[in-house]
Amino acid sequence: MLLKNIFNPPQNQWRTKIIGQFEAVVGKDGVVRRKDELLTYECDGITGYRQRPALVVLPRTTEQVAAVVKICHENEIPWVARGAGTGLSGGALPLEDGVLIVTARMKQILKVDLDNQRVIVQPGVINNWVTQAVNGAGFYYAPDPSSQIICSIGGNVAENSGGVHCLKYGVTTNHVLGLKLVIPDGSIIDVGGPVQEMPGYDLTGLFVGSEGTLGIATEITISILKVPESICVLLADFTSIEAAGQSVADIISAGIIPAGMEIMDNLSINAVEDVVATGCYPRDADSILLVELDGLAVEVAANKKRVAEICQTNGARSLTSANDAETRYKLWKGRKAAFAAAGKVSANYFVQDGVIPRTQLVNVLREINHLSEKYGYRVANVFHAGDGNLHPLILYDNKVAGAWEEVEELGGEILKLCVKSGGSLSGEHGIGIDKNCYMPEMFNEIDLETMQYIRSCFNPKGLANPGKMFPTPRTCGEAANARKLEEFKDAELY
Amino acid sequence: MLLKNIFNPPQNQWRTKIIGQFEAVVGKDGVVRRKDELLTYECDGITGYRQRPALVVLPRTTEQVAAVVKICHENEIPWVARGAGTGLSGGALPLEDGVLIVTARMKQILKVDLDNQRVIVQPGVINNWVTQAVNGAGFYYAPDPSSQIICSIGGNVAENSGGVHCLKYGVTTNHVLGLKLVIPDGSIIDVGGPVQEMPGYDLTGLFVGSEGTLGIATEITISILKVPESICVLLADFTSIEAAGQSVADIISAGIIPAGMEIMDNLSINAVEDVVATGCYPRDADSILLVELDGLAVEVAANKKRVAEICQTNGARSLTSANDAETRYKLWKGRKAAFAAAGKVSANYFVQDGVIPRTQLVNVLREINHLSEKYGYRVANVFHAGDGNLHPLILYDNKVAGAWEEVEELGGEILKLCVKSGGSLSGEHGIGIDKNCYMPEMFNEIDLETMQYIRSCFNPKGLANPGKMFPTPRTCGEAANARKLEEFKDAELY
Repeated sequence: MLLKNIFNPPQNQWRTKIIGQFEAVVGKDGVVRRKDELLTYECDGITGYRQRPALVVLPRTTEQVAAVVKICHENEIPWVARGAGTGLSGGALPLEDGVLIVTARMKQILKVDLDNQRVIVQPGVINNWVTQAVNGAGFYYAPDPSSQIICSIGGNVAENSGGVHCLKYGVTTNHVLGLKLVIPDGSIIDVGGPVQEMPGYDLTGLFVGSEGTLGIATEITISILKVPESICVLLADFTSIEAAGQSVADIISAGIIPAGMEIMDNLSINAVEDVVATGCYPRDADSILLVELDGLAVEVAANKKRVAEICQTNGARSLTSANDAETRYKLWKGRKAAFAAAGKVSANYFVQDGVIPRTQLVNVLREINHLSEKYGYRVANVFHAGDGNLHPLILYDNKVAGAWEEVEELGGEILKLCVKSGGSLSGEHGIGIDKNCYMPEMFNEIDLETMQYIRSCFNPKGLANPGKMFPTPRTCGEAANARKLEEFKDAELY
Repeated sequence: MLLKNIFNPPQNQWRTKIIGQFEAVVGKDGVVRRKDELLTYECDGITGYRQRPALVVLPRTTEQVAAVVKICHENEIPWVARGAGTGLSGGALPLEDGVLIVTARMKQILKVDLDNQRVIVQPGVINNWVTQAVNGAGFYYAPDPSSQIICSIGGNVAENSGGVHCLKYGVTTNHVLGLKLVIPDGSIIDVGGPVQEMPGYDLTGLFVGSEGTLGIATEITISILKVPESICVLLADFTSIEAAGQSVADIISAGIIPAGMEIMDNLSINAVEDVVATGCYPRDADSILLVELDGLAVEVAANKKRVAEICQTNGARSLTSANDAETRYKLWKGRKAAFAAAGKVSANYFVQDGVIPRTQLVNVLREINHLSEKYGYRVANVFHAGDGNLHPLILYDNKVAGAWEEVEELGGEILKLCVKSGGSLSGEHGIGIDKNCYMPEMFNEIDLETMQYIRSCFNPKGLANPGKMFPTPRTCGEAANARKLEEFKDAELY
């Protein structure tokens, strides 16, 4: 279904017939049908894959979502759910024959229960709003993707998003207590609940990270944490990435669990300084290590001393630290802007997302360097070092013929390297359309078949986000061709 | 299927035909068939439900488990998996027409990887053995059910077991990285993996806590933690349970997350002192609060001071604390022996397991007292106060006619109270055969149907642990009758 007919007038004759039904549910202004307006929804954060949806529907409530999904179910119209569209694996790539259900109007924080440290939100609520809503009372929401000021909680749930502070506190799944779901036949179900311990199968855990293939979460109960008494960020700079990597291993071995622990290499440092000019990252450093410690003031002070000693033992040239919020923000700013900076210093970039066991860090980084040289593309390394979640940024120029294909191949080699090293295909960006062809690197046929069974339970007609997450007969080469279609987007007839 | 024909010679004519097939897989000594030997397997930790299995099979390897399950699948023989048989909801209650697959011979620790803080075990490995295996190197396995010296990791996975130290570190599901599974058609699948972040559906999370209804875990990859630098246990004694409960709320509100936080009431204190004579628990206290703090020495010292202040503000009569292992052990010993002690001071006891939001603690305890008075049975309260997981122990005498029915009714009232207060039916003991009739208190028809769909994916013939976890047409009254059959067990013909 995916990517078919892209050069021909679409086959979705159902549009005219069904538009009225959608409008009856969400109102006239809740259905986007004009070609120029649909353009906005062509892609998510991974702009290489583009496809215009037949229609966009913007519900406001669980009941509206259920009614919209039911119309799709009855008319066998495939659909894709979209949050803020910041995803990095093309999970929200629309179908030209399908409906895109966008949660942009579902932005209410429904309940704040400080006593029990939980908040109920609609899926379109922006990640950062949760912390803003409870910060005054001394709480925050822990999972913090770099895109947290624009990404939505619904999208975070779909992708099981992580962030720089997930080393100590866990990714999204560790913070979701319960969900109200609309499943692909339009039924509304509740999974999980108000407390952590719930009997029955853990369907909440199953749904988090299911990338829109099992339904849409319309109410999300998340837990919030107390703001720690003290927070300190340390920046150490090294003359080799091995030394930075060894420091990470030594910190963990010492039993210290920092709130976050990130490495950036020289290429990333300079990209960031070029673009956001933090002034904090030494441009001549081979790599820098950022460590955030939190807890009681006495604990943070003691751990700061230990981390500093470990970094010095491993040859850190200099150490900077910040306890006040303003300087901490400055130290993190460059890291949080790393992807955007890569986009500024290179015509195009492709961000990879793989996981390796921490012990393989130095080996894998060395291998990535070899691959970078072999393929002739610069690779900037920025990563969640504490949990081995790498984000190599491959810099390239899309205008050079054949570049994308080579970059995709290089990206694939890096992923295979991660899996071969005992790691995983994705840390936090999901599989989506971008990596589904690599799933067999990690799972055998029967493992994947088991997941497909589960998918069929919820999604028997295959209408919810078809073509995503699971490898289809489509090869990776075909995916590469699909990307090239981007150039033809203006030639489409509609 | 369950409990049928209990007065008649069983219908399992398949026994004679199939025994040879099982023996070919696990050897002659791997099949238990004699009536007197089968007695051992009649019940698990909840002795009220008893039923003799047709056969017991004792495999040693994944391949043997797969072959045994395949024989059951092909011959449509229902089966139940059993770990150490310490479960408290009858999850491992056998079927008289069925096979009991016991993991008692699968006791190998297959791999210890200290660098990446993970251990791979067979399901029959005893919980405590994991910590013993890695403790010398400074690590431990966090989930610690009170039965940890006898319960198995496989059983912990099936029930998603908790323990007194799960407040800070989470229950079993938070410590399982991956599983090798034999699913009910005899296929072997791998779910999860060596690192925390894995793409695809979280089938590991789905399986943990599935109570034997989806298959058998034959290899379990668990994560281990570093032993903290310092551990301190505080014991505070109070003249009212309200004051103890308020201290718990205030400790959490202060942002302190103790490793464990437990309350015992006067009845439990005296039962424990009668039986294990710790000498530490003041017999005249209305209730005691045990708080374990761990972390860096400076952190523990600071938090100890804060906890002590909170307890004093709430009227604690006395405070004892212990930093050394020996005294800490003494302080915990009574709590860990609480269930066993109840069994000594009363002819029989029934332990309930419900969860409530922490803010409802005082209200719910008051209500339980009212219920105890109304029904005329003493209820001892011992509980994981930090996460609101109550364990009311109802003391009764089975010889008194009608006692059990009243106790079951009282237990049910307590569960309904937990659910009504915004909590849950089970914190850590599972649903099994004991609570499946209460599932509709918590889940509506469509929620339960969704779980049944999932169950059918793995278990389409319904052969794996039938009759457990989900409410069957059987009413709670029928379950009560089933218990009475216990008295007739010697009259059974075989």
